Amino acid sequence: MKKLINDPEDVVAEALLGIEAARPEVRVDHANRIIYRHDAPMAGKVGLVSGGGSGHEPLHGGFVGLGMLDAACAGQVFTSPTPDQMLEATRCVDSGAGVLHIVKNYTGDVMNFEMAAELAAAETGITVDNVIVNDDVAVEDSLYTAGRRGVGVTVLLEKLVGAAAEEGRPLSDLVTLAQAINDSGRSMGMALTSCTVPAAGHPTFELAEGEMELGIGIHGEPGRHRVALASAREIAEQLMDPILADLDFGSTPVIVMLNGMGGTPLIELYVMYGEVSKIIQKAGIIVARNLVGNYITSLEMAGCSVTLLRADQELIRLWDAPVNTAGLRWGI
Amino acid sequence: MKKLINDPEDVVAEALLGIEAARPEVRVDHANRIIYRHDAPMAGKVGLVSGGGSGHEPLHGGFVGLGMLDAACAGQVFTSPTPDQMLEATRCVDSGAGVLHIVKNYTGDVMNFEMAAELAAAETGITVDNVIVNDDVAVEDSLYTAGRRGVGVTVLLEKLVGAAAEEGRPLSDLVTLAQAINDSGRSMGMALTSCTVPAAGHPTFELAEGEMELGIGIHGEPGRHRVALASAREIAEQLMDPILADLDFGSTPVIVMLNGMGGTPLIELYVMYGEVSKIIQKAGIIVARNLVGNYITSLEMAGCSVTLLRADQELIRLWDAPVNTAGLRWGI
Repeated sequence: MKKLINDPEDVVAEALLGIEAARPEVRVDHANRIIYRHDAPMAGKVGLVSGGGSGHEPLHGGFVGLGMLDAACAGQVFTSPTPDQMLEATRCVDSGAGVLHIVKNYTGDVMNFEMAAELAAAETGITVDNVIVNDDVAVEDSLYTAGRRGVGVTVLLEKLVGAAAEEGRPLSDLVTLAQAINDSGRSMGMALTSCTVPAAGHPTFELAEGEMELGIGIHGEPGRHRVALASAREIAEQLMDPILADLDFGSTPVIVMLNGMGGTPLIELYVMYGEVSKIIQKAGIIVARNLVGNYITSLEMAGCSVTLLRADQELIRLWDAPVNTAGLRWGI
Repeated sequence: MKKLINDPEDVVAEALLGIEAARPEVRVDHANRIIYRHDAPMAGKVGLVSGGGSGHEPLHGGFVGLGMLDAACAGQVFTSPTPDQMLEATRCVDSGAGVLHIVKNYTGDVMNFEMAAELAAAETGITVDNVIVNDDVAVEDSLYTAGRRGVGVTVLLEKLVGAAAEEGRPLSDLVTLAQAINDSGRSMGMALTSCTVPAAGHPTFELAEGEMELGIGIHGEPGRHRVALASAREIAEQLMDPILADLDFGSTPVIVMLNGMGGTPLIELYVMYGEVSKIIQKAGIIVARNLVGNYITSLEMAGCSVTLLRADQELIRLWDAPVNTAGLRWGI
């Protein structure tokens, strides 16, 4: 295992030290492994909390800041944070307007966020609601999931609901908006290589030189098919066909994310974006906005995912609203 | 070789298609492989042109846009663009105020940009000047370089001189500023793994499981030492000691860049940033601004580099000025 780390057990704690040193817009609660906005809680604003296993950076900690999340809980690599962490994050960002939990659909995350919400209700009186993101068209149940996994739409949802929360909209509105966004987006990913969890010290799975995995999850959990390595053009089709088959994108423009899994160079992501955009154009869909880069990763896995989100004018307006985070920044 | 590409020969051309599709702020001249600002040439503004081999993305094409470069020439992977490309880019962005070539110190780049400047003088009458970036403290001559290599300072220089050019400052001022920036910055990098040039199809070099290369160049050219794999803490010292020994940072604040080589996950870059920031603090140096991420890469190489730049109040002001590019974006 070749990694820029000290002790494998300390990776998350030490990355949090680096984030604290680097990012003026956030504070870090090291005991609870929470990254939160320096100005939290914001009076009158619903608090947005997300979190999950580490190893997907910039998700979620890199999306804490004005216009996106108020706090993110960092679990160990590929391991859900605990309900206690989530409860502390909830307390930290509540201004009295309530807190929305943004939860990727993995069994551990869902269970722990539910427990945190129950604890919040019992111990604090904070109103908590949630949205479960489940946009991955690749598989119906999976190693760590009942139902579809939550992947790329999480990034877009955190941006869009973050912008709406910044406008002072009430919790019930944000829940409705978040659910609508989840329902309007689909993703699918693939891997050329595995990744190595630091504490494990060996690759999560093996892929032969001529193989790739389609429909991979962000923890290296199995996808749809292990298939022969294909060209960027064919891979773009293999990712886009299931997305377009799963949701009618009609004439609504889309926000597209071509996301790298962590170990794929940007030049390849742009080759892929070129192929994906040709397919989108052929399908008669208009791209309103796009992201190309590493946003929801799987350590150093080589591969990519595609996310399409139907975005009407109101969502485009929220997309363009100012955001100031490590992972997304504009209008500031 | 596992890459998200079609034909290895088409990688650069097809990445340019993706960039054109993704980025509204730029246009692409596919015949000449030039990425340029959609609003070039800007009346009264000195044109900033850079370029070099591809495979270092977002450098340089990802830094074309308001507040940074006016145009970038893309060579084949790790191969200098031709003088003809550079001449065309120079023509494309000249408004009559002259053009500055920002050149990383590699023999091919330096020679070709010189020839382009001569052609520009002979054929067009455009005033061209240049700055040669040579900030790498690792080695004094190298496989593709006489003198020091140009690495991380290039990114900071393109941002800072880009901001100054946006203010309408004359070419002679920008040359002086660019030279001062180059003289005020130092970098050093390291690699855990090699990378594979698509047209070659095999890794540029081999590193055993327990080895790393200190002082590596961005094309995989040899560094200072091939040494035993060390901890993030030790690697931070091995990169920072030569930087601090090479330049007196005095009491001037610095801009720090902790740059990933393309295949290293962000969580590791933050671990490294934590270690580097401790060393900087111990040296009594104040960090005014920082970047943590992939800015000047070497395809999918795992590893990182550190850049420190002395930045007085005027440079900080230029740093904070608006920028709108794929690789850096704020104030917009």
